[in-house]
Amino acid sequence: MKNRFLSLIAAIILCTAGFSQTIADDFKPSTLNQPGQEYPQVNSQGYVKFKIFAPKADSVKVTLGLGGRGGTRLTKGTDGFFTGVTEGPMDEGFHYYHLIVDGGVFNDPGTLHFYGSTRWESGIEIPAHDQDFYALKNVPHGNVQQILFPSPSTNTSRRAFVYTPPGYEKDKSKKYPVLYLQHGWGEDETAWSNQGHANLIMDNMIAEGKIKPFIIVMTYGMTNDVKFGGMRNFKIEPFQTVLVDELIPYVDANFRTIAKQSQRAMAGLSMGGMETHTITLNKPEVFGYYALLSGGTYNPTEIKDKSNVKLIFLSCGSKERPDGVKNAATALKEAGFNAVSFVSENTAHEFLTWRRSLKELAPLLFTN
Amino acid sequence: MKNRFLSLIAAIILCTAGFSQTIADDFKPSTLNQPGQEYPQVNSQGYVKFKIFAPKADSVKVTLGLGGRGGTRLTKGTDGFFTGVTEGPMDEGFHYYHLIVDGGVFNDPGTLHFYGSTRWESGIEIPAHDQDFYALKNVPHGNVQQILFPSPSTNTSRRAFVYTPPGYEKDKSKKYPVLYLQHGWGEDETAWSNQGHANLIMDNMIAEGKIKPFIIVMTYGMTNDVKFGGMRNFKIEPFQTVLVDELIPYVDANFRTIAKQSQRAMAGLSMGGMETHTITLNKPEVFGYYALLSGGTYNPTEIKDKSNVKLIFLSCGSKERPDGVKNAATALKEAGFNAVSFVSENTAHEFLTWRRSLKELAPLLFTN
Repeated sequence: MKNRFLSLIAAIILCTAGFSQTIADDFKPSTLNQPGQEYPQVNSQGYVKFKIFAPKADSVKVTLGLGGRGGTRLTKGTDGFFTGVTEGPMDEGFHYYHLIVDGGVFNDPGTLHFYGSTRWESGIEIPAHDQDFYALKNVPHGNVQQILFPSPSTNTSRRAFVYTPPGYEKDKSKKYPVLYLQHGWGEDETAWSNQGHANLIMDNMIAEGKIKPFIIVMTYGMTNDVKFGGMRNFKIEPFQTVLVDELIPYVDANFRTIAKQSQRAMAGLSMGGMETHTITLNKPEVFGYYALLSGGTYNPTEIKDKSNVKLIFLSCGSKERPDGVKNAATALKEAGFNAVSFVSENTAHEFLTWRRSLKELAPLLFTN
Repeated sequence: MKNRFLSLIAAIILCTAGFSQTIADDFKPSTLNQPGQEYPQVNSQGYVKFKIFAPKADSVKVTLGLGGRGGTRLTKGTDGFFTGVTEGPMDEGFHYYHLIVDGGVFNDPGTLHFYGSTRWESGIEIPAHDQDFYALKNVPHGNVQQILFPSPSTNTSRRAFVYTPPGYEKDKSKKYPVLYLQHGWGEDETAWSNQGHANLIMDNMIAEGKIKPFIIVMTYGMTNDVKFGGMRNFKIEPFQTVLVDELIPYVDANFRTIAKQSQRAMAGLSMGGMETHTITLNKPEVFGYYALLSGGTYNPTEIKDKSNVKLIFLSCGSKERPDGVKNAATALKEAGFNAVSFVSENTAHEFLTWRRSLKELAPLLFTN
């Protein structure tokens, strides 16, 4: 009996140890900190340590932590700094967060800002084991340029960012296919460069000879201000008009594009996937390649003319609903489509899923 | 005696009224607010109203207010919001600020962020009577593109932003002069586009036929990390090497520039003016046009070969030291230089001074 009791105790200790590992003391400033800022810091296991100066505050909480457990409550020291470490390691990749200081929402003064959740949020990067594919390397770099294109339908000049691959400025006769790449709900046209490193992913793959160069165009997809009404009031028409009738003709007129359906792709993450789904079905004559990143699936019966579709790419993180994506791709393949699914291991509805998705998608584009 | 007493009272009332004008009740959200954010607001007189949610905080202060009076202390309401109005009207144009919440430095969650003071700060725009020259209008727009150029001297790829004028993508044979345009201390290569609207100033002047199109290149000037050591430890060599030996050759190789001294200008604001001063003197064979915006002056005796210098432009705000700028320009003219001074009325060491300076400078560039 005593032995069994001791075994039980041992099992409890082992079990507890399994959940609360020793936190490695190798914290380093996050790569997304503002210049010169020491905090927040990340360790080799993915724990995050915060340090916030607010000497007269009663409470500082961080919305980053384990899902459903309500983030990380910091502890006040006698020096006026609030400090704390996340309860567990965070998933690899990029995460949005903010502080709650005495009940008010503020950003961490240590970090850069990233537009998400319809506001500029704090961001942190947990180094991923495969981070090399989106690292800034000593390879030829493409440019990301802000364009302001006329939009009669919204009565203003609208902003887009255009990635032109390395060499674009040199060979003045070469023309390129174009990927129109959309952000998710609450984000904007800065997301794929800032959070996604789309330009670096492209630069690296081009340098390695894994893809043929193409142009990427990123613009704002929440044209009808769904951000404040929520997705329920979403209508596709305002954005579809901006994209198809205004932006694409502008890009084709001002950049060296191959301006035809078979050399034009549309992809989007999350809400951007929903937009991609709807617009590609509405305008099969405009896009030849479709990609939904954590953004739903296509049903084979939705697509009228199979011959128009060069590729359907469906992806998500393994912590989302990977079976939905895989099953949809299987059904599409059985119906005769060139469909590919990709599941990002150990990631959720976050940007590492989408960086990896872009890396998987890019070599499949404009090959047919 | 009673009459004299009443007169005195009346005088005091009038005097007080003179200092505290009636605050017009026409506050509108600042144009630099994040999408959908109602606060901060600005009225037609230039007063700013703040509203910050921090229900459990004891004190919220804003570092925006009248010079030397320590900003604006907000008052807590029963609804958990701190509100307040600046003690007086602010100067026209752009201002940096931040909040102090219970002793900690945070940004206003209502505003966009602008890099200044070596951190991303809150920003506000007081509409200027002459704001039309930097407004987003329905005219052809140039692009602002991020480039990543190799920098062996700093062992990394460095970032610059390049403004290419409208039409750059169309006429593939046309070549352009280049202005290298530097930010001030604590700012970075984003400042001239974000805070300065350099691209819109150019677009508007080109549309009005006031200037011939040229390229603008903006990169980071605090190469040797003076931001944390202060200006005392500033050395020009690291930045001069990046600019002259790395960035200029890259721009000349990758953009359609007229790659010669007489078609290359350097300008900078504040610390960027100090850099411009030093580098143009060190490298007279590289730049033909020099401009210091709130960034010091040239002494005629500093310049060895007068024939190299096409233009010296000196400017500042009327609330800085306008006589220094005017007298220096006079001395330069007397010494035979093509020198021009400009004083921005009713502005201090802030971005409206520099936006106006760029507007005055641009028509004078590349004309000789």
